Amino acid sequence: MATLGVGVAGVGEMGRRHVENLRRSVPNARLVAVADVNSAHAARVAGELGIEHSFAGLEAMTERSDVDAVVIATPDKLHAEGIRIAAAAGKDIFCEKPLATNLEDAHAALAAVQRAGVRLQIGFMRRYDPAYLAAKKQIEDGDVGEPVLIKSIGRDKDPPPMAFYEAGLNGMLFYNNTIHDFDLVRWLLRDEVVEVHAYTTVAIHPRIAHYGDVVAALVNLKFARGAIGNIESYIQATYGYDVRTEIVGSRGSIFVGSLQQRPVTLFDARGSLRPVADQFLTRFADAYLAEMQDFVETMLGDRPPQVTAEDGLRALEIAVAAEESHRSSKPCAVEAGARPEAIGTGPAHLR
Amino acid sequence: MATLGVGVAGVGEMGRRHVENLRRSVPNARLVAVADVNSAHAARVAGELGIEHSFAGLEAMTERSDVDAVVIATPDKLHAEGIRIAAAAGKDIFCEKPLATNLEDAHAALAAVQRAGVRLQIGFMRRYDPAYLAAKKQIEDGDVGEPVLIKSIGRDKDPPPMAFYEAGLNGMLFYNNTIHDFDLVRWLLRDEVVEVHAYTTVAIHPRIAHYGDVVAALVNLKFARGAIGNIESYIQATYGYDVRTEIVGSRGSIFVGSLQQRPVTLFDARGSLRPVADQFLTRFADAYLAEMQDFVETMLGDRPPQVTAEDGLRALEIAVAAEESHRSSKPCAVEAGARPEAIGTGPAHLR
Amino acid sequence: MATLGVGVAGVGEMGRRHVENLRRSVPNARLVAVADVNSAHAARVAGELGIEHSFAGLEAMTERSDVDAVVIATPDKLHAEGIRIAAAAGKDIFCEKPLATNLEDAHAALAAVQRAGVRLQIGFMRRYDPAYLAAKKQIEDGDVGEPVLIKSIGRDKDPPPMAFYEAGLNGMLFYNNTIHDFDLVRWLLRDEVVEVHAYTTVAIHPRIAHYGDVVAALVNLKFARGAIGNIESYIQATYGYDVRTEIVGSRGSIFVGSLQQRPVTLFDARGSLRPVADQFLTRFADAYLAEMQDFVETMLGDRPPQVTAEDGLRALEIAVAAEESHRSSKPCAVEAGARPEAIGTGPAHLR
Amino acid sequence: MATLGVGVAGVGEMGRRHVENLRRSVPNARLVAVADVNSAHAARVAGELGIEHSFAGLEAMTERSDVDAVVIATPDKLHAEGIRIAAAAGKDIFCEKPLATNLEDAHAALAAVQRAGVRLQIGFMRRYDPAYLAAKKQIEDGDVGEPVLIKSIGRDKDPPPMAFYEAGLNGMLFYNNTIHDFDLVRWLLRDEVVEVHAYTTVAIHPRIAHYGDVVAALVNLKFARGAIGNIESYIQATYGYDVRTEIVGSRGSIFVGSLQQRPVTLFDARGSLRPVADQFLTRFADAYLAEMQDFVETMLGDRPPQVTAEDGLRALEIAVAAEESHRSSKPCAVEAGARPEAIGTGPAHLR
Repeated sequence: MATLGVGVAGVGEMGRRHVENLRRSVPNARLVAVADVNSAHAARVAGELGIEHSFAGLEAMTERSDVDAVVIATPDKLHAEGIRIAAAAGKDIFCEKPLATNLEDAHAALAAVQRAGVRLQIGFMRRYDPAYLAAKKQIEDGDVGEPVLIKSIGRDKDPPPMAFYEAGLNGMLFYNNTIHDFDLVRWLLRDEVVEVHAYTTVAIHPRIAHYGDVVAALVNLKFARGAIGNIESYIQATYGYDVRTEIVGSRGSIFVGSLQQRPVTLFDARGSLRPVADQFLTRFADAYLAEMQDFVETMLGDRPPQVTAEDGLRALEIAVAAEESHRSSKPCAVEAGARPEAIGTGPAHLR
Repeated sequence: MATLGVGVAGVGEMGRRHVENLRRSVPNARLVAVADVNSAHAARVAGELGIEHSFAGLEAMTERSDVDAVVIATPDKLHAEGIRIAAAAGKDIFCEKPLATNLEDAHAALAAVQRAGVRLQIGFMRRYDPAYLAAKKQIEDGDVGEPVLIKSIGRDKDPPPMAFYEAGLNGMLFYNNTIHDFDLVRWLLRDEVVEVHAYTTVAIHPRIAHYGDVVAALVNLKFARGAIGNIESYIQATYGYDVRTEIVGSRGSIFVGSLQQRPVTLFDARGSLRPVADQFLTRFADAYLAEMQDFVETMLGDRPPQVTAEDGLRALEIAVAAEESHRSSKPCAVEAGARPEAIGTGPAHLR
Repeated sequence: MATLGVGVAGVGEMGRRHVENLRRSVPNARLVAVADVNSAHAARVAGELGIEHSFAGLEAMTERSDVDAVVIATPDKLHAEGIRIAAAAGKDIFCEKPLATNLEDAHAALAAVQRAGVRLQIGFMRRYDPAYLAAKKQIEDGDVGEPVLIKSIGRDKDPPPMAFYEAGLNGMLFYNNTIHDFDLVRWLLRDEVVEVHAYTTVAIHPRIAHYGDVVAALVNLKFARGAIGNIESYIQATYGYDVRTEIVGSRGSIFVGSLQQRPVTLFDARGSLRPVADQFLTRFADAYLAEMQDFVETMLGDRPPQVTAEDGLRALEIAVAAEESHRSSKPCAVEAGARPEAIGTGPAHLR
Repeated sequence: MATLGVGVAGVGEMGRRHVENLRRSVPNARLVAVADVNSAHAARVAGELGIEHSFAGLEAMTERSDVDAVVIATPDKLHAEGIRIAAAAGKDIFCEKPLATNLEDAHAALAAVQRAGVRLQIGFMRRYDPAYLAAKKQIEDGDVGEPVLIKSIGRDKDPPPMAFYEAGLNGMLFYNNTIHDFDLVRWLLRDEVVEVHAYTTVAIHPRIAHYGDVVAALVNLKFARGAIGNIESYIQATYGYDVRTEIVGSRGSIFVGSLQQRPVTLFDARGSLRPVADQFLTRFADAYLAEMQDFVETMLGDRPPQVTAEDGLRALEIAVAAEESHRSSKPCAVEAGARPEAIGTGPAHLR
C-alpha cells in the first residue's frame, strides 16, 4: 500500500501530538522529518521518536522530495507564511487553526495555494470528535427540527504564561480559541453568521489589555436563516478544560460536552472529586488522531479535504468581525469575501 | 400568635399556587379572600379551598378591614394598577414580577406606595430556591473569587397558546420571562448591569412578531465592575422547563440547575428516560412556598421586605433596555433612575 | 373540619421531626402533647414549639382524652411495649420502624392492637418519597417487564457514637437500617422474600462486635416468584447519606437515588464539590411530611392505614432471618407466620 | 526495532478485535497469521486486513517459525487445549478469559506452560481501562482507607442467541461474564476471596436451565482480610452494556463506571436520550488496545506478564465455588490450590 511522506513544522505541544500520532498510530504515514525554529528541540524530538530528519525551518524541510505533505503547527501568526512556503514547494498542506490572524495574510496564503494547485486542510479537529459527530448526525436527521439557538462554551483551565503574550506570536482570544466555535456553529447548522456583537473583559488581568488581548468574551451571533447564538471563551476556569455546546431547536435540543474525563469518582468527607479534563490534548485526543488519519487518507486518496480553505477563511472572517465589535462596542457585520470554494481542494476533476 | 389577613388578586395558575400555599402551609396566614375578574372562577376557587370571601376585583377586596396584605397575581400589564389600588387602601403588598411593563407605570405605582407608606415585595422567587441560595452563599464566601462571567438560561417547555398573545395582557419575553434572570444576576453578583445587547428571533413562529413578541432571545450584559454576562430565554424547548445558571470567576465556578425533576430514571431499549421538570410551579415549588412564608413573617414582623421595590424597578430597567436593543439592533445603556431605596420598605425606623 | 389530637412519644431526632411536621405543616393535626423519658427535654421541646402538655412517659400521655392518636418514636427496643400501652388506651398508633426487635415482642404488640381494635401504621417513610413512588408506578405500569433483580444500598455518613451501642436500646444493623430495604423490596416487587444469605463485617470497628452489631452487611435475597436481590447496609460512608435502589427487569430497569442534595455544584482547582445529602432527615424530608399527613388524614377518614402491621411484621421476619444467617453463616429461610392482615387496620367494614 | 510475530487463533467478534488492533495500532507487532475452525472465515479476515497467512487450526499456525506468540480467542471450553498446543510449540501466549472452564483443564494447561517455559498472559482487559487504573491508584494511595465493601455489576444488553447455548462451547455465566469481576475484586483489593454464596435465576428464560446456565446471578463474597462483596451478572439489561464498580472504605469510596458512551444527549418531548454503551468492544475499546500493546511490549521486553496464569487460576477457582454454591444453595469455600506463581512468567531470572 502506498504511504504518504509527511513533514511536521513546529513541534511545540500541538505539533508534537501530531508527530506522535503520525509516528505511532497512522500506519499509512511515513513521518520523514520535523522542523522547528528551535533546531535543537527539533533534533531532540526526532531522536526520541525515531524520525530520520530534522530541520531549523519549513523551507529546508520542503526541499526533500520524499516529503509529500506538510503539517503546519507553528505559532498562529506564522500559519499564513507557512502555507505560502509549502504551497510554493508543491506540497499538500494540513494547517492548524487559524488560517491566519488577519484577512490580508489569509488571502495571500490562499492565492499561493490556488497558484500551486495543492490541497489545504484546516485543523478544526472538533469536527472529528465522536460526540460532535453524533450531534451533527442528529441535527441532519432532523432530531432538533429547525435550529433556533446555538450556544458554545470554551474554557481553558489556566491562562497562558505572560511570555506567551509578550512574544505576540499568537492571535488574540478570538483567533486562538473562539475560532473553534466560529467553525463549529457554521458546520453544525450549515448556516452562515452574518453579524456579531461582542463584550469582553480584562478585569482580573488588566495587563493583558496591553497586548490587545482579553481574558473572557461573550459573542452574540446572528445567522442568515434566522437562528441566533452565543459563544463564551475564557482563559482561567481553574477547574479544568471545559468545552460544551447546546443546539436548541423547534423539536429538540442536543447537549454536547462533559466535564468528566474518565468515569471514576472519589467520594469522601470533602465531597465528590471527579477528574475533569485538564486540556485540549486530553479532551480531544481521539479527534486529533482521527483528523490526522483522515488527512493522510485524503491525500493518498486524491480526494478534496473535508475541512477546507473556505472553512478556514469563513471562521477567520467571523473572528475579525468579533474583534471589530470588541473595539467599537457595536454589532459588526461579517464581511464575506468572494467564495473560495475552488481553492485548496485539489484538481477540479476531484470535486 | 398574631396572624396576617391576606387577600389574593388573580387566581390563574400562579395566583392559585399562592392561594394553596397560604391556605395549607403558611400557618400564620389567614387567607380571607380571593379576587378575580372572572368572579365565577374566584368563587369556585374560594369554595374548593374553604376561603370565606370572593370578589370580582381587587378594589372591593381591599375594602375589607381584615385584609392586612394583598398578593397581586394578575396579568403583567395590570400589576402597576393593582399596586396603586392596594397602596391607596393602605395594604402591604406582594406583587408578582414584573413590577410593571413600562417605566411610567412603574414610577406611578412606586409613588403610590411611597405616599401610602405601605411595604412592597416583588415576586422574584428564585431568591428563595435552596440551590440558588446555596450558590449565593458560596459567592459571598469568596468561593468563585472575582466573578468574570455569568450565564443564565430560561427555557419553557411549550409556548403559550396564541390567545395569550392576542389578549396582550402580558409583557413580551423580556418582561415575562427574562426578567427573572435580570434580577438574578444583580442579586448574585451584587453588581449593576450598565449596558445590554440583544439578538432575538421569531423564525419558528413568525406570527408572534405581529404581537411585538419573540420566541427566543440572547442578551449580552456588561456590568459596572467589569464582569460580562449572557442570558438566554426561549419558549419552546419541548423537553422540559430548564433553568440553569453558571457563575464563572477567577477562583472557581458555580453551576446551578438540573434537568432532573426527581432522582428516578427508567432505562430500556430506547435509552434512558428521566423526568425533566415540566414547568415553573414544579421546579420552584419550594421557592414559591418559602417566598410566601417569608412575606407573611416579614409583614407580621414589621421588617422591610427582602426583595424590594428597587429590585423590581432595576430589573425592569434592564428589560426596557433589552427591548430597545432588540428594536434598534444596537447596544443600549441601562438608564437607572433615582434610587428608590426608601420606597416600599415601611417606616424609616425599620430600615 | 375535624382535627386529630396527637401525642408524640420520644422526642429525639426522629420524634422531633414528627413534632415539627405535625405542628407546622399538618393543618388537620392538633399536637396536644409530647412525652419523653427525659421529661426536662420533653418540656423544652413543648415550650419551643408551643405545645401545651409534656409528659415523662407514654402511659401518662395516653390518659388524656384529647389525644386521639399516638406517634411512637422511642428507641427500637421499646416500640412493641409502646404499641401495647397505646393500644390498651384505645389510641390509634403510628409507630416508627421496626415494629419490634424480635418476633415475640412483635406478636405480643399485634395481639394488643387486635384486642383493642385500634389502627397501626408503620413508619416506612420511603413509600412516601416522590422518587420511590414514581418508581413504584413505573413498575406497576409494566415498564420493567418482569423483575429479575433488585438491589438496594443504604449508607450512613458517620457511625453512631459508642454510647449508642452501649445503651443497647436499638436493634442491630438489620433492625435499625436494613429493615427499610426489606420493606422496600416487598413493596416495589409485590413479592415475598423466602430465603436470605448474609455476610457481615466488623473489620474497621471490632469493638462493635461486643454489642452484637456489625459495620456493614450484604444480604442476598431469594423471592417467591423467581427474582433475586441484594441489599447493602453500611454505617461509615464518610461522604454522605446514600440511599439508592435499582430494579432490573426483562424489559427495562429503574434507578432510584441521587447523591446530590441540591442542584448546585462548585468547581475549582480541587475539582467539583457537590452537596451530598448528609442524613435521612434531609434526604427524606418530603417523605416524612407526606407520611405524617397521610397518617392524620387516614385516621380522620376512618380508612385502614397504607403501611400496615403486616408490613411491619414481614420486614421484621426478614431481618430475623438475616441475623440468623449472619450468626450461622448459612442461608436462612424466612419463616412467615400466620397472615395478620386483619390486625391494626380498623373495623372490618373499613377494609 | 525488533517486532513480535503474532498469530491469532479464533477470529470471532473478540478475536477480530485483537486482529484489528494488532494490525493497525500496535506498530511493534507483525501479525503473521490467523486461524479459525471456520477456515473460510479465517481466509476472509486475512484478506480484508492484509494478513499473509490463514489456517484452519491453531496447531498448523504454530508450526510457523515467524510466529513468536499466539493470541487465543477461541470459545471458552477450548482455551485450555489451545494453551497446551501453543505451549508445546514453544510460543508465548495471550489467552482470553477464562483460563479454562474447570480446574482439571486449567491445571493441565498450566503444567504444559511450565514444561515449556513459555509465558502466559490472561485477557482481563479491565485492568487496562483508564478508569479502573485510576481507581486502582487511588486505592493504593489510601484514598478509601481500609476497604470494607466492594460491589460490581456486569450487565449485557441482549442475551446471546439460543444457538450459543446449544453449541455448549462457552462456560456458564460465572465463567463467561462474572469471571471479569472475580479478577477485578482480587486486583483492586489485593486480597483473596475465601468463600462465596450465589443466588441465581432463570425466571425469564427457563429454557436456559436445560443448558446448565442462568440469566442472572448475585454472588456474595467474603475476603481473607475482612472485607465483603457482591457481584451481579445479568444477560438482558435491554438498555445497554453496563459495567460499574464501587469500592467502599473506611475513609472514602470510589465509583467506577458510566452508562454514557459519548458526551452527547438528545432532549425532546420524549425526555432525554443518551447513547448508552452497547457492548464490551465499545466500552472497553481503549482497554483492549492497551492490553494488546502491553502484551507485545512485554513479550519483546523479556518481562513477565502483568496479568498472570495465577490470576487466571484464582478467578477460575472463585467461579467454580460460585457454581457449586449455585448448585448446592450453600455458601462454598474457595479452594485455592498450590500457588502457581512461577508458571507462565518466563525464565526465573526475569521475575
